[in-house]
Amino acid sequence: MEKWKNGRNENRHVISVLVENRLGVLARIASLFSGRGFNIDSLTVAETEEPDVSRMTIVSTGDEKIIEQITKQLNKLIDVIKVSDLTGDRYIERELVLIKVNAENQARGEIIQIVNIFRAHIVDVSPASLMIETTGDEEKLRAIIDMLSPYGIQEIVRTGKIAMLRGRIDKES
Amino acid sequence: MEKWKNGRNENRHVISVLVENRLGVLARIASLFSGRGFNIDSLTVAETEEPDVSRMTIVSTGDEKIIEQITKQLNKLIDVIKVSDLTGDRYIERELVLIKVNAENQARGEIIQIVNIFRAHIVDVSPASLMIETTGDEEKLRAIIDMLSPYGIQEIVRTGKIAMLRGRIDKES
Repeated sequence: MEKWKNGRNENRHVISVLVENRLGVLARIASLFSGRGFNIDSLTVAETEEPDVSRMTIVSTGDEKIIEQITKQLNKLIDVIKVSDLTGDRYIERELVLIKVNAENQARGEIIQIVNIFRAHIVDVSPASLMIETTGDEEKLRAIIDMLSPYGIQEIVRTGKIAMLRGRIDKES
Repeated sequence: MEKWKNGRNENRHVISVLVENRLGVLARIASLFSGRGFNIDSLTVAETEEPDVSRMTIVSTGDEKIIEQITKQLNKLIDVIKVSDLTGDRYIERELVLIKVNAENQARGEIIQIVNIFRAHIVDVSPASLMIETTGDEEKLRAIIDMLSPYGIQEIVRTGKIAMLRGRIDKES
């Protein structure tokens, strides 16, 4: 059963993995999840400031104990530099989405209003469609997609989530 | 040798793959790339509007012929619904990045100016740091990171790129 707290599913884990950018590392990590019957909700892997190091952000929903096992096994892979399970910590979570929506003449004005309310951006326009870029947490993205759906969404592309721990409020002693 | 055109590396391929959300599909696709000695620059996989379907956006740099082979092999996987190589088409490309930067009292004002110039957003503040959210293409992200580097970047998390074809200017006949 899904438990929700502050708009977040409590069974959902956000795992950040720093890896050596070696051939096959993504396949090895993905196999580790699927080998345990664990579906990945979203995964992003991208460069960091160090050319040989990439960072993955993996979102997976499921049993705490199995996630713990997976985290331990991740730590054993030689390509893995660091694993952090952010779940339970104070973190900021964001996702980027591009939405192409039908926008013939009369609908265009209404869609622009919705875009402004959500502080989203129009990044492309054609006679029959608008492309909208927006970022947010799960709840905000669901809300804007729901508002645009009646106009006819042609295509949605999402990045999957990334997350970062908030800064420390207390000064380190 | 890298060839650049309109700020984009000409050897870089952006491949969009629609897949059935089955266990192990990510591992199978990642293996296909690494099995051919092909490094993935960035990869995102996230849900679509259909619960059983996910979309991957893969950015890979390299030889045109090998990319063609990989695309053909992707099409043969039973989990794969559709493969589109966007390279050469008119597409919009975006990436989201979170940047945590040192921001003690005197630096904070300067950083806020940079954030405003790039139309980025501050999403978290602590006595010693700011967390900045911004989206853009490769060039813009590189520019803001370069501007923030002198203050001391604590952490960067990127989503990797997503891309979407622009709307048709000509009406379909």
